[in-house]
Amino acid sequence: MSTSSFWRNGLRAAAAILGASALTVVVAGHAATPADRGGHDRRLGTSPVLKHTGKAPTGYSVTFRYYAPTASRVQIKGEWSFVRPSALPQVASTPDHTVESQGILPLDWRPGDAPMPYPNSTDPNFPVNDMAKERNGVWTFTTPLPSGVFTYAFFVDCPTDNGAGCTPVSDPSNAPWNEKNDTVTGSAVPNSQVYVPSDSRFGTVDYSWQAPAKKQGKLRIATYSSPGHVTPVDENRLVVYTPPSYDPRRSEPYPTLYLNHGGGENEMGWSTQGDVKNIMDNLIATGEVVPMVVVMPNANGYPASTDNAAFRSDLIDRIIPWVEDRYHVSTTAADRAFSGLSAGGRITNHLMLNDTEQFGYYGMMSAGLAPGQTLSDEQVTALKKVSVFIGAGWQDVIFAKGFNNFHTGPAMEVSTFVDAGVPVTPDFVHGGHNWNVWRLLLKDFVTRVAFLPQPFASWEG
Amino acid sequence: MSTSSFWRNGLRAAAAILGASALTVVVAGHAATPADRGGHDRRLGTSPVLKHTGKAPTGYSVTFRYYAPTASRVQIKGEWSFVRPSALPQVASTPDHTVESQGILPLDWRPGDAPMPYPNSTDPNFPVNDMAKERNGVWTFTTPLPSGVFTYAFFVDCPTDNGAGCTPVSDPSNAPWNEKNDTVTGSAVPNSQVYVPSDSRFGTVDYSWQAPAKKQGKLRIATYSSPGHVTPVDENRLVVYTPPSYDPRRSEPYPTLYLNHGGGENEMGWSTQGDVKNIMDNLIATGEVVPMVVVMPNANGYPASTDNAAFRSDLIDRIIPWVEDRYHVSTTAADRAFSGLSAGGRITNHLMLNDTEQFGYYGMMSAGLAPGQTLSDEQVTALKKVSVFIGAGWQDVIFAKGFNNFHTGPAMEVSTFVDAGVPVTPDFVHGGHNWNVWRLLLKDFVTRVAFLPQPFASWEG
Repeated sequence: MSTSSFWRNGLRAAAAILGASALTVVVAGHAATPADRGGHDRRLGTSPVLKHTGKAPTGYSVTFRYYAPTASRVQIKGEWSFVRPSALPQVASTPDHTVESQGILPLDWRPGDAPMPYPNSTDPNFPVNDMAKERNGVWTFTTPLPSGVFTYAFFVDCPTDNGAGCTPVSDPSNAPWNEKNDTVTGSAVPNSQVYVPSDSRFGTVDYSWQAPAKKQGKLRIATYSSPGHVTPVDENRLVVYTPPSYDPRRSEPYPTLYLNHGGGENEMGWSTQGDVKNIMDNLIATGEVVPMVVVMPNANGYPASTDNAAFRSDLIDRIIPWVEDRYHVSTTAADRAFSGLSAGGRITNHLMLNDTEQFGYYGMMSAGLAPGQTLSDEQVTALKKVSVFIGAGWQDVIFAKGFNNFHTGPAMEVSTFVDAGVPVTPDFVHGGHNWNVWRLLLKDFVTRVAFLPQPFASWEG
Repeated sequence: MSTSSFWRNGLRAAAAILGASALTVVVAGHAATPADRGGHDRRLGTSPVLKHTGKAPTGYSVTFRYYAPTASRVQIKGEWSFVRPSALPQVASTPDHTVESQGILPLDWRPGDAPMPYPNSTDPNFPVNDMAKERNGVWTFTTPLPSGVFTYAFFVDCPTDNGAGCTPVSDPSNAPWNEKNDTVTGSAVPNSQVYVPSDSRFGTVDYSWQAPAKKQGKLRIATYSSPGHVTPVDENRLVVYTPPSYDPRRSEPYPTLYLNHGGGENEMGWSTQGDVKNIMDNLIATGEVVPMVVVMPNANGYPASTDNAAFRSDLIDRIIPWVEDRYHVSTTAADRAFSGLSAGGRITNHLMLNDTEQFGYYGMMSAGLAPGQTLSDEQVTALKKVSVFIGAGWQDVIFAKGFNNFHTGPAMEVSTFVDAGVPVTPDFVHGGHNWNVWRLLLKDFVTRVAFLPQPFASWEG
């Protein structure tokens, strides 16, 4: 299964935390946390600090700050290597070739360059930089950045130059939303995000729909009963987004979007790296999407099963009813959409093929069908009654090649569906197997497919 | 054939001008022009005047001004009636129902409302308002407007309240790009456009990619030899966009996008109402598309033929070679894309089905296949080698019903192609049979399909 996590080491730590049965975990008591993890010391000041430089290459720079007076080394890892679209033809037009990303760094950024790990991989390997220590014990690192959301984290006293074997930590001045006063509710997130605006003079794309909105919805993390779930035992977690002005008493129940994380991630992925609250807040504010409830489950910790059957059963038998009991959402499948990325894209496929009638809209991101998968007549008939969206990054290594024995990649999935007469909305964007792509695909799925009529004639001609 | 013009009367006048063999036409000498057509009188001042009000409903207002001291009545017609997406399910989910647009006016605009004529029609009927006369002979009209590009024009001394039977004129202070000092080069355009920015506090969408860009490409209108063309005789016109920093000596030749107008329009449509220069300038600046040459032919004035055969022959045998002789463009089909709207969408289909190998990418907007159209094995084989994009407005009357005997609409075209195993990228957006939709579709076609790999696996699995 593909690892679409920010990076593997950090998620091993997150997985360890996930093993605890208590919903609330105090970070300070977590063994994987460096002893001198930075706190909100007054000498730290704000981090990150966004500066509108008005200068090349992007018009903006960001300074990251981390207070660690006794550390001998602090590093920062961030999503700031880039792929140039001119690398595209090599990777997307045939399964015989894969290009490694050129690993363009921020100073060399040019319009069109999209964030992508170097080397191109499903196990992202973004740049790691040493930070500089100032007299007050604060370590700093400044880099120009183009517009968009960037995930970053710190390593403290890590002996390796690329962070291998070390535990990343989030920014204490910019902590994940489920962390307050060093106390984590749910799964700890070992990274933070920064949003950078666009200065159009430098050819950056205006991603203001990913910025914090004026009217904001709410994120909540909850534990629900999940008999048979292994880790944690007989229960599991999910995150729920409710839109701004959510009204449990309005006449019309809300539609519900279910969003699944990638391999190595958990219920926190979409609401941190995925920027889901800002994206939905903005798209709802402009009327580009209708207000909806978004549910982000955790697909880890289930007993082994074929085609994610254990998770699918839990989703259908427990999560959906749990959500319908507690939120003012529609109980009809035509008002439910499911989307997931990478390993979550495979879950999307398993649902789409086996439980088709449970959702009206499927958004498969950055995965593919199992090698040799064929569609039965019954599956084709069922699939023609729903809307199918298949998206990925053009430069994703899995675009044409798929991923080992797990799947054949999204391009082949489009072909398999079309060959079977199942209409598909394909959506490929510049980028790799990383969150920059999934934020774009989320916007496209909810504005163009989810909760809209079928994008083809479903009546007789 | 559908009439996708801003409105029919104005284009009758334009067609009359098109009949002249001289490329340059002096507007003042044109009989259809009102005698007291406004000029650049110092008392006129600027028109339109954009004001950031910061107030509901949109945060912006626009004042239009027209100098006509001897007129007894001046009216303005503009693309400012709107459809609410909640009207969607009625129109797009079955061919049995059509809703008339609700005809929402600017003061009642709410986030999500998209420009659409009232009543919903392929023959747009946007609001006509009386303007108020000021002491200095200037007539004014002020309206709040959401973000985006709006086309408008004036009627002088028109006896009807809706402009019927009267000749619209463009704004002398904001003349079409092919008009300088009351002299028109090519076809006169009876309307003007205004771009309104977004104030995000009011939920307007940021359409800054439709605004004038810092680095601008160039538009040129040209006459080429077209033996057999009826009107004008043995010649025809086209408009060519070259990108900013167009370099006829760079090593790599440019790709070429051919864009076709709708019924009743001509070679000027895309570069005025279609905002093509601003859109391409912006998308090139951000690297969202590669620099390309855009060619906008005139499909009118050909001898009668089946499936636009006369125009298609002219395009393939004369226009493409003419462009390749004069511009530094690639001569291979994989570097050529064709897109057209409404009647131009039908031309796109006729090319796609009959001359498939001439272009690598087809963008069919707001039309459909002929009723009963089936695809031969040869056509299917050829179509699988190109990329097919099919887009329209969800609320377009032709979405599900098609248009009389001309075509079955885009939803049915998607189904016909998918049933035949031809991959399609469908793209439906909120709006009707009008330019707001086509500007959105243009962006989507060039950023997601044109000059990109096929959005499916074209190799053996």
